[in-house]
Amino acid sequence: MRLTFIAVENIPMVQPGDDLATLIDQGLETMGEVLQDDDVIVIAQKIISKAENRYLDLSKVEPSDEAIELALEVDKDPRKVQAILDESREVIRKRPGVLIVEQKLGFVQANAGIDQSNIISENGDDDDLCLLLPIDPDKSAADLRNEVSARHNINVGVIINDSIGRAWRIGSLGLAIGVAGFTALEDYIGQTDIYGRELLVTQVGAADEMAAGASLVMGQTDEKTPVVIVRGYKPRDPEDKSLRGVAPLLRPKDMDLFR
Amino acid sequence: MRLTFIAVENIPMVQPGDDLATLIDQGLETMGEVLQDDDVIVIAQKIISKAENRYLDLSKVEPSDEAIELALEVDKDPRKVQAILDESREVIRKRPGVLIVEQKLGFVQANAGIDQSNIISENGDDDDLCLLLPIDPDKSAADLRNEVSARHNINVGVIINDSIGRAWRIGSLGLAIGVAGFTALEDYIGQTDIYGRELLVTQVGAADEMAAGASLVMGQTDEKTPVVIVRGYKPRDPEDKSLRGVAPLLRPKDMDLFR
Repeated sequence: MRLTFIAVENIPMVQPGDDLATLIDQGLETMGEVLQDDDVIVIAQKIISKAENRYLDLSKVEPSDEAIELALEVDKDPRKVQAILDESREVIRKRPGVLIVEQKLGFVQANAGIDQSNIISENGDDDDLCLLLPIDPDKSAADLRNEVSARHNINVGVIINDSIGRAWRIGSLGLAIGVAGFTALEDYIGQTDIYGRELLVTQVGAADEMAAGASLVMGQTDEKTPVVIVRGYKPRDPEDKSLRGVAPLLRPKDMDLFR
Repeated sequence: MRLTFIAVENIPMVQPGDDLATLIDQGLETMGEVLQDDDVIVIAQKIISKAENRYLDLSKVEPSDEAIELALEVDKDPRKVQAILDESREVIRKRPGVLIVEQKLGFVQANAGIDQSNIISENGDDDDLCLLLPIDPDKSAADLRNEVSARHNINVGVIINDSIGRAWRIGSLGLAIGVAGFTALEDYIGQTDIYGRELLVTQVGAADEMAAGASLVMGQTDEKTPVVIVRGYKPRDPEDKSLRGVAPLLRPKDMDLFR
């Protein structure tokens, strides 16, 4: 097996309303490349959010008493804390400089995934500008998949990834927050090893493993390569519709020993 | 940027004392491939442990009272629990079927990384046979790197990976447990985004991202491709010796909100 991760070059700064399928095609064209059947498109959350105009202007946010109190505790802008609370189900951990929540979509991450780097408003005054996660990243992924399939008459998988911190280890990891046409969780339960013994590692976060590899290719310090094409994987949609999207990767709270 | 993950084919079942550099060269040769300057070799923990004869025969383990009591609590073989305790600094979480520890090397993982799948003893009676993690995975990685450099007169990076469960999400992820010639943690602290604003995501677990991508290529149900060559990354050793190896990825206990 040979997997190739190809960073798509010359993707311009994404604006609200931009058609990402067009930008990907145009970027690949500058490289003499074209999407192929069974490619997986890994795309950074940030440009999905920009295309979907998920900007929030903090100067228009009125922090509640709860947000003001919490902001003091975690040493953050009360308006940003209000935005984080608005995007969250509950606070998981807090301490000065750190606010880890369960985001509304079920992702446990710092600041509910709200980002302030690599974004700018039209008038250049960007200090109060934030970018929220997409409203429904699985739908964003599925929409892009359908658009690409319609244009090229090919099957592709789509993963939206985001850089997320983790317990026990230092350094963020690119993880999947939206998935389409790709089995996010590979389940080997009931399968046996080469000696017929039942496997101990029975579930593999395949979409996260691909999201992580793609994140390495995307880099962090600029926004020049927010799209990576992964060639050689042959993605497939789970037959069971309940297993589609990113949900199979999210551990329910009552099954989680680390909240 | 283009990264290619190449699964090395035709690696035979690894035996204690095997020279892995030779097996990798031979496997690549069957594919008409050869190691190149700046390749990264990602290699599964399991075959490192086998080559280093890290087998443990549970029939020779005498469980302590503590292990017997804990085994009842977590519904596991008391001898296996004793082996896990012997390999651990402390128990992090326990419940029936689950025993998560800080392994002696600092890795937080289930069962101290002790594995019973895909291993077999010479007489075929493998029910009591376990495989422990390498004693010093960074050294194992460095030894392999030096051997490859000496043979081919090239620079390579080496990452030893293992499938590890995580908080909040279902499904294991391939993560680095040993690193040589590769900057495990990419540190962007103090760097700015494309608008000159300080980056929010400042540390990236680069070795983990590569380990995860390679794990996807290795697969899980057989042992045929426990080595993956990653081409296109240009690995480099951190100049600061204290930042070498896997240690920069491990969050110290007193800095960890999730123990």
